[in-house]
Amino acid sequence: MTHDLDTLAERLRTGDRRALARAITLVESGRADHRAQATELLAKLADPRREALRIGLSGTPGVGKSTFIEAFGTRLTAQGLRVAVLAVDPSSARTGGSILGDKTRMERLSRDPRAFIRPSPSQSELGGVARRTREAVSLCEAAGFDVVLIETVGVGQSETLVAEMSDLFVLLIAPGGGDELQGVKRGIMETADLILVNKADGDMKSAATRTAADYAGALRLLRKRPQDPQGFPKALTVSAETDEGLDAAWSEMQALAEWRRAHGHWVARRAEQNARWFAEEVRQGLLARLREDPATREAMERLSRRVADGTLPPSAAAAQVLDQLPEASGR
Amino acid sequence: MTHDLDTLAERLRTGDRRALARAITLVESGRADHRAQATELLAKLADPRREALRIGLSGTPGVGKSTFIEAFGTRLTAQGLRVAVLAVDPSSARTGGSILGDKTRMERLSRDPRAFIRPSPSQSELGGVARRTREAVSLCEAAGFDVVLIETVGVGQSETLVAEMSDLFVLLIAPGGGDELQGVKRGIMETADLILVNKADGDMKSAATRTAADYAGALRLLRKRPQDPQGFPKALTVSAETDEGLDAAWSEMQALAEWRRAHGHWVARRAEQNARWFAEEVRQGLLARLREDPATREAMERLSRRVADGTLPPSAAAAQVLDQLPEASGR
Repeated sequence: MTHDLDTLAERLRTGDRRALARAITLVESGRADHRAQATELLAKLADPRREALRIGLSGTPGVGKSTFIEAFGTRLTAQGLRVAVLAVDPSSARTGGSILGDKTRMERLSRDPRAFIRPSPSQSELGGVARRTREAVSLCEAAGFDVVLIETVGVGQSETLVAEMSDLFVLLIAPGGGDELQGVKRGIMETADLILVNKADGDMKSAATRTAADYAGALRLLRKRPQDPQGFPKALTVSAETDEGLDAAWSEMQALAEWRRAHGHWVARRAEQNARWFAEEVRQGLLARLREDPATREAMERLSRRVADGTLPPSAAAAQVLDQLPEASGR
Repeated sequence: MTHDLDTLAERLRTGDRRALARAITLVESGRADHRAQATELLAKLADPRREALRIGLSGTPGVGKSTFIEAFGTRLTAQGLRVAVLAVDPSSARTGGSILGDKTRMERLSRDPRAFIRPSPSQSELGGVARRTREAVSLCEAAGFDVVLIETVGVGQSETLVAEMSDLFVLLIAPGGGDELQGVKRGIMETADLILVNKADGDMKSAATRTAADYAGALRLLRKRPQDPQGFPKALTVSAETDEGLDAAWSEMQALAEWRRAHGHWVARRAEQNARWFAEEVRQGLLARLREDPATREAMERLSRRVADGTLPPSAAAAQVLDQLPEASGR
């Protein structure tokens, strides 16, 4: 596929969802010519005035993430907001996604003209997924979306990755007893700006209320962060079934975003995220070069045999390869 | 700290746990001189004949992972086996660990003279944790341990990482209904050699049996892998409280390991893992060099300002930095 990049950029800027989908396909591509086009397209579209609220959303399987996004997203579009949903799912790298596809769980939202839903790409490594998602976020902003929801599953590295491309980070959890509370890692608690206890309806309502109180208590034990106004991070109950609590959750997100804007944290956080992304891009590019260098490839193949049979440790073999490389500054 | 590496290697080879602990501290260190020593120590100790059964163990918070390791590990040491327990916990990178330390949950095992327990290191990036854990596994093998349990939490990249340094991968889950089954990602299901449904005791026993049957059914839906004998992967119930099912689980692990040894999969898998680790070491070393190069650092600082304010996309800025680097093969 060749792209008339100017036309694509122009159509994308008008908010055309098909142009947006095509542009995301371009940034997802592994082909070198597509990568060059993607870089050019992103440079054309760079416009700091087009800015969405980027909300990272995490929760382990079973907490009702898709149902939440369906209900929450529909509420935002009903207010006239344009909402994009992107996903970072490291487990889909291997098999191409969860047993149930996400889009089928967001039927209403996927038909909504103010919404745009894009499932996780099936890329081979988390680094690739990260780049594609960061660039897709930029494209959604250039297309004039007001809110970009970046969804991820559970604990681990994918959560950190999503937090690093979001303005706000929301952790969705299920109602549960004291045991579960102990199981939540401090690292995740400290990343969250808002903890939403889902399924606060029917039989589960009182359990959800208790769980939210438990988490609110736990959050108070953590060190106050400079980027938080009084009372944040908060733990609230929501129900994606009855819509209860969704408006309150949205108000809290807006209040937090406004406060951070007013106090300089918004700009500082985005600048820091951009800087980190830039460094990451340089690293990735460097690795791609190394893979193309014949001398390095030859040395690695030669040492690989001894590494494979266990007589030479990988660290010692790597030291030998690196010793034969030219200095980066040796021009 | 300076190390007489020959003495350390000798003591470690006799199975001395203090020497093992010191050696792991050395591979965990970020100092350049320590790294050189660690590389030398690992080369001294490289001995393909000293091989443990490396068991990767994953489970989300709350499934009873520590209790399981305590019960399972104690059973192995009672048979005369020497058992090492290592942990990969990406969330501990930020805050130094979970709210409850793991060692306090494995009181019996941590006092057992045939066991060695080492908590997750608090390193800043998953790559560092991965290297340290892989090298710690090698050190445990050199120290003559028979079984190395490598524990990790939940879904995501840390699970893949642990699977890539294990001979067997065990997924520990809690009893639950059909909903949870749908939530398990195929990528994780396909990584597991054995799914153990924990808490199969008291009130939970019948739920655990049902869950195991559900997972066994789901596993049958997956494509057969060449490295599996008939009937694998399996789903079984265990109870870390009553010890029920632990011996059966161990028998299955041994049977699977023996089959893979006999059919060449064991050697092939280890060779492939070593090759991947080698490539990773080369990448890490290359990145470390880049950080030390003044010209690259200067270019990055200059472009960083435009990246930070959003007028230059990170991908375009990275392309400019990479364009000024010398060719890797330009010697």
